[in-house]
Amino acid sequence: MIQFYYIRYFIDHFGFDENLTFQQRYLVADQHWKKDNGPILFYTGNEGDITWFCNNTGFMWDVAEELNAMLVFAEHRYYGESLPFGNESFSDSKHLNYLTSEQALADFAVLIEYLKTTIAGARYSPVIAIGGSYGGMLAAWFRMKYPHVVVGALAASAPIWQFGDLVPCGTYFSIVTNDFKKSGTGCSESIRNSWNAINRLSSTDAGLQWLSSTFHLCSPLKNLQDAAILKNWLSETWVNLAMVNYPYKADFLQPLPAWPIQEVCKFLKDPSLSDKLLLQNVFQAVNLYYNYSGEASCLDMSETATKNLGQLGWYYQACTEMVMPMCTDGVNDMFEPQKWDFDALSEECYRLWGVRPRPSWILSMYGGKNISSHSNIVFSNGGLDPWSAGGVTQNITDSLVAIVIPDGAHHLDLRSRNPLDPKSVQQARALEICYMKQWIEKASHSH
Amino acid sequence: MIQFYYIRYFIDHFGFDENLTFQQRYLVADQHWKKDNGPILFYTGNEGDITWFCNNTGFMWDVAEELNAMLVFAEHRYYGESLPFGNESFSDSKHLNYLTSEQALADFAVLIEYLKTTIAGARYSPVIAIGGSYGGMLAAWFRMKYPHVVVGALAASAPIWQFGDLVPCGTYFSIVTNDFKKSGTGCSESIRNSWNAINRLSSTDAGLQWLSSTFHLCSPLKNLQDAAILKNWLSETWVNLAMVNYPYKADFLQPLPAWPIQEVCKFLKDPSLSDKLLLQNVFQAVNLYYNYSGEASCLDMSETATKNLGQLGWYYQACTEMVMPMCTDGVNDMFEPQKWDFDALSEECYRLWGVRPRPSWILSMYGGKNISSHSNIVFSNGGLDPWSAGGVTQNITDSLVAIVIPDGAHHLDLRSRNPLDPKSVQQARALEICYMKQWIEKASHSH
Repeated sequence: MIQFYYIRYFIDHFGFDENLTFQQRYLVADQHWKKDNGPILFYTGNEGDITWFCNNTGFMWDVAEELNAMLVFAEHRYYGESLPFGNESFSDSKHLNYLTSEQALADFAVLIEYLKTTIAGARYSPVIAIGGSYGGMLAAWFRMKYPHVVVGALAASAPIWQFGDLVPCGTYFSIVTNDFKKSGTGCSESIRNSWNAINRLSSTDAGLQWLSSTFHLCSPLKNLQDAAILKNWLSETWVNLAMVNYPYKADFLQPLPAWPIQEVCKFLKDPSLSDKLLLQNVFQAVNLYYNYSGEASCLDMSETATKNLGQLGWYYQACTEMVMPMCTDGVNDMFEPQKWDFDALSEECYRLWGVRPRPSWILSMYGGKNISSHSNIVFSNGGLDPWSAGGVTQNITDSLVAIVIPDGAHHLDLRSRNPLDPKSVQQARALEICYMKQWIEKASHSH
Repeated sequence: MIQFYYIRYFIDHFGFDENLTFQQRYLVADQHWKKDNGPILFYTGNEGDITWFCNNTGFMWDVAEELNAMLVFAEHRYYGESLPFGNESFSDSKHLNYLTSEQALADFAVLIEYLKTTIAGARYSPVIAIGGSYGGMLAAWFRMKYPHVVVGALAASAPIWQFGDLVPCGTYFSIVTNDFKKSGTGCSESIRNSWNAINRLSSTDAGLQWLSSTFHLCSPLKNLQDAAILKNWLSETWVNLAMVNYPYKADFLQPLPAWPIQEVCKFLKDPSLSDKLLLQNVFQAVNLYYNYSGEASCLDMSETATKNLGQLGWYYQACTEMVMPMCTDGVNDMFEPQKWDFDALSEECYRLWGVRPRPSWILSMYGGKNISSHSNIVFSNGGLDPWSAGGVTQNITDSLVAIVIPDGAHHLDLRSRNPLDPKSVQQARALEICYMKQWIEKASHSH
């Protein structure tokens, strides 16, 4: 019921020297579409394979019939199959030069115009942008920059304010910590205590060996640097668990049971255990995340989530436009204290890609907190989601509306309806649909 | 009372591979500025030396005191002294690659943020964009794309709709024709008849010689191609006269008397004269435009206007983003019939710069006629100005307002007050000031 298509764009919308083009993939599902200018729900693809986002955005499928809407999922350039220079796309900073949010939004604008002129009956179809996470930022920015293309946007779990000094850099990790604190006695304290346990063990070769075997690591730890990688990997695991702390069995970043943090915390009840006993429990916890199927023969620290996400591309974006300050203090959060270190990031980016991040550019481009002159954007946030730290959680105007879903993790509202959905996400979705209907209604009247 | 400054930007705001920077020039006059967050009037520089625009935008100087405003004039990249690659800036399409409206708007946004953070007392200064012609388009687009940076825009004689098929391609030249028709009996007919007179004479060497000497040309005509250049040059002269048909002596594109078309038409009363007599009159007419001072020893067809405009840069822009369809039919206008020929333009652009124009890009980027969701833009138009053909001449919403000045040529309203100003331009300016005060007032309340 879904069709795959490709459209050719200019690789560079903003310059005319390179006249090269590339093929972008998009998916269309129109079985519920009212052919006489029925609305189009347009997923502004983010950093991954679009089929995976399509499969994890059941909300759009659930509302297609009610809204008589066509669904379009557009793949973000440099992800999935939409590689401007094929296998060379990530070879150097010259080939990566066109991986920016501005180019992606221009792709979307040109695609929508193409659809409206080529699909019979779509000429006046009102289009609503929908996206989650970075895709949610794109949805919001798309409405801000191209209000002539989309009548409104649903920006789910979109941390558009996780830039510059718009929000405190520590909130993100304190939300993760709270999720663990609420999910089991001793849980966040166990994790807080685990870092020093690892530090103590990793100071000897025997300890490193013990850690490697206890954590079933595919590549054993050889030195303190490897131990630091282990800690980063564990941190990322806790963060990912916070993002996918869904109320039912799901498979987003990894296959997981319902309320996975509660499951994880069952292993982490006693923070006062000896180093080895504590870390054995920590292994049980991460093993639940990485090996819920029980099929993994060892744990690979180079992977923390689904392969459907384009890590390389996103890392380049984080090294250029998407500079999101983060920090921990070990007090308000359960992590090792780490200040936000822009200079270190900049050096690392220069080493990896030959580029320097421009931390204020996104603020200049998209306005930071000064966005009240825009309209028709719903920002939805999950109370359990660390990304809500950088989200819009309070109404800005009558038509820049914030929704908070206290029991929601990362864009839970975009997922399919589920019998185990908390009331809060059901209400959020109802409100989102209500706004979308208003935008469609108003657009239809203007023709 | 005006200070010259320079700011360093990235040459490429939209890519991170080239980390090169360049110096952009801007002018500041703050003698009337109220230092406690008084407003800033920001001229969005267009295709020329910014000091020249500064000197020809007396309106901003006239209202500075009344509004307690700081004046800032920002030079457009690739014009005046703001050359990203110095003398190499126009050497090839690689160096020209960053000459786009999007880069220029990003320059302005970064400049304004820089001013607000570095000038004491300017932190919350409301900024209003003001510009004329292409600068007027930039002012309007700036408000559309960066509403967090400017609270409103005055877009004077800004043909934002002279793109794609938004307006008929012939209106522009029919307005020029009407200006001549209204300014003297036989005037437009004389010009209409002049083309065939030139065609007949240029068919012989003797005729070409006669034309060269009659028109006091610096380089004599050698063949039919040269005769075509002569006709183009004459056409441009009539168009320029329509743009600068001001009610008083002025020196914008050229030094000219009050109502110059009336003066020109005094030579063009009898369209039924023989070829040579008619063309001798046409020479008198163009001589008034090119040689009002009486100092020119010959007329140079390669120049039709002030050297302060950057012809080369503008031609590149017309070959890339700024594709403005124009046509003549010889019936509704006084010109030789010429269809709009995009393919010929494209070939010429490729030959000259190695680039192809993208005629629909400006529409995708800035929304064409679908701009009603924006706010706080005043579009002013001169009834005598051919560029009003592509202007916004009717209100779109309460805050997207059109002003028409029936007796106005090209952005007359931006010029200094003059005792000979028609009532219509006085009223237009009063209304513009009224809107600016509203925007300032509203912005001040939000802090």
